[in-house]
Amino acid sequence: MASEHTAKAFDSDLQELTRLVAEMGGLVERMITESVDALIRRDVALGKRVVAADIEIDNLQRVIEERAVLTIARRQPMAIDLREIVSAMRVATDLERIGDLAKNMGKRVAALESDFQPLKLIRGLEHMTDLVLSQVKSVLDAYAAHDLPAAMNVWKGDEEVDAICTSLFRELLTYMMEDPRNISFCIHLMFCAKNIERIGDHATNIAETVFYMIEGQQITDKRPKGDMTNFATTVPGN
Amino acid sequence: MASEHTAKAFDSDLQELTRLVAEMGGLVERMITESVDALIRRDVALGKRVVAADIEIDNLQRVIEERAVLTIARRQPMAIDLREIVSAMRVATDLERIGDLAKNMGKRVAALESDFQPLKLIRGLEHMTDLVLSQVKSVLDAYAAHDLPAAMNVWKGDEEVDAICTSLFRELLTYMMEDPRNISFCIHLMFCAKNIERIGDHATNIAETVFYMIEGQQITDKRPKGDMTNFATTVPGN
Repeated sequence: MASEHTAKAFDSDLQELTRLVAEMGGLVERMITESVDALIRRDVALGKRVVAADIEIDNLQRVIEERAVLTIARRQPMAIDLREIVSAMRVATDLERIGDLAKNMGKRVAALESDFQPLKLIRGLEHMTDLVLSQVKSVLDAYAAHDLPAAMNVWKGDEEVDAICTSLFRELLTYMMEDPRNISFCIHLMFCAKNIERIGDHATNIAETVFYMIEGQQITDKRPKGDMTNFATTVPGN
Repeated sequence: MASEHTAKAFDSDLQELTRLVAEMGGLVERMITESVDALIRRDVALGKRVVAADIEIDNLQRVIEERAVLTIARRQPMAIDLREIVSAMRVATDLERIGDLAKNMGKRVAALESDFQPLKLIRGLEHMTDLVLSQVKSVLDAYAAHDLPAAMNVWKGDEEVDAICTSLFRELLTYMMEDPRNISFCIHLMFCAKNIERIGDHATNIAETVFYMIEGQQITDKRPKGDMTNFATTVPGN
């Protein structure tokens, strides 16, 4: 960048972008918590609030994209500076998708008519959500602090979430086999479990963005995968 | 842009970006066709080829993002020129997501063990895929040709896809209620139907990007929605 003035202007642009991403991250974390709370407590009103909150997330993503693009055009940053801006855009894209997934869970609350709600399933869903939420929090902290080891911990930790998701899917299949009246409910919960798993995938995407931002290259290692839900057709009693 | 030289360099950058997006679009269209063909014909090898093709899509998205960012930094485009570059990035993001959804369907082929395959379901899935594929093709043509009316047709046409998806979900639920041995198979098909519906959503996202590119503002109208699958719990026999 040409002058001290430009460098200062860039720093201020970058600070504002980082602030916006942090704001978006906070809102998205709340959406995850509230959507699963709404599901578990059958709180239709809370589900609707999550759906409504997604508009704010979409707007924030647009604002971040616009500001990032303007910063690139005005300040012509290079190397790490350019990667910082691109990373803010990428993280915002992942957060926007997480918002969509939470919104989809919020929508499903109204559809859960049955009283059927085995405690084991609920605990499984809560456990999975806690793990994923802590991943999202950790990776956003790692992004803000430029902490590569912390980001890599999140990147490696996705395996456990995938394993819980697979076991939850097996459980849900069993309930569906046992009584057709459980089917609708269990399908909604399957889609929700899959959504939470996907939120975990976005946390690992953000970890990859932190790697790119700091190291200046895309991560090439293959991530450990515990996900078997695409193949989990071997069901007890089948 | 400052000089004639810069203007020419920009045009050449933009042409290359547009070419890359078109290439990505062609690959993604093939992935959609092949993933559903693989599902219907239980062609596990074809399913695996779709999964493998996704790497190329991910790489293309990164290339488009990198070139777009470099073009913005080097040429400092304004107004419509800047929107062209941002739009290429946005379309690439949606295409990458479509690739993921097709890949997910490709993965599921190996899991469809049962011989159960009612013709009505297959026809429904094919019909939905044809509609969505024609939307993806039309919107990519509209993007390449800067044809706003054509893009708006795609934007409005999503309703039919959502309605077919809802009816397919009802059908699948009926089969699951009838015989527990159908459950695993039907769940895979539900996730596939939902994936195809989401591909349709990405086509409408691209239509919104065309609107933004040409009009210089985000679309604000609410899109017609025929999707009831989040709420489709009223099942025959329930």
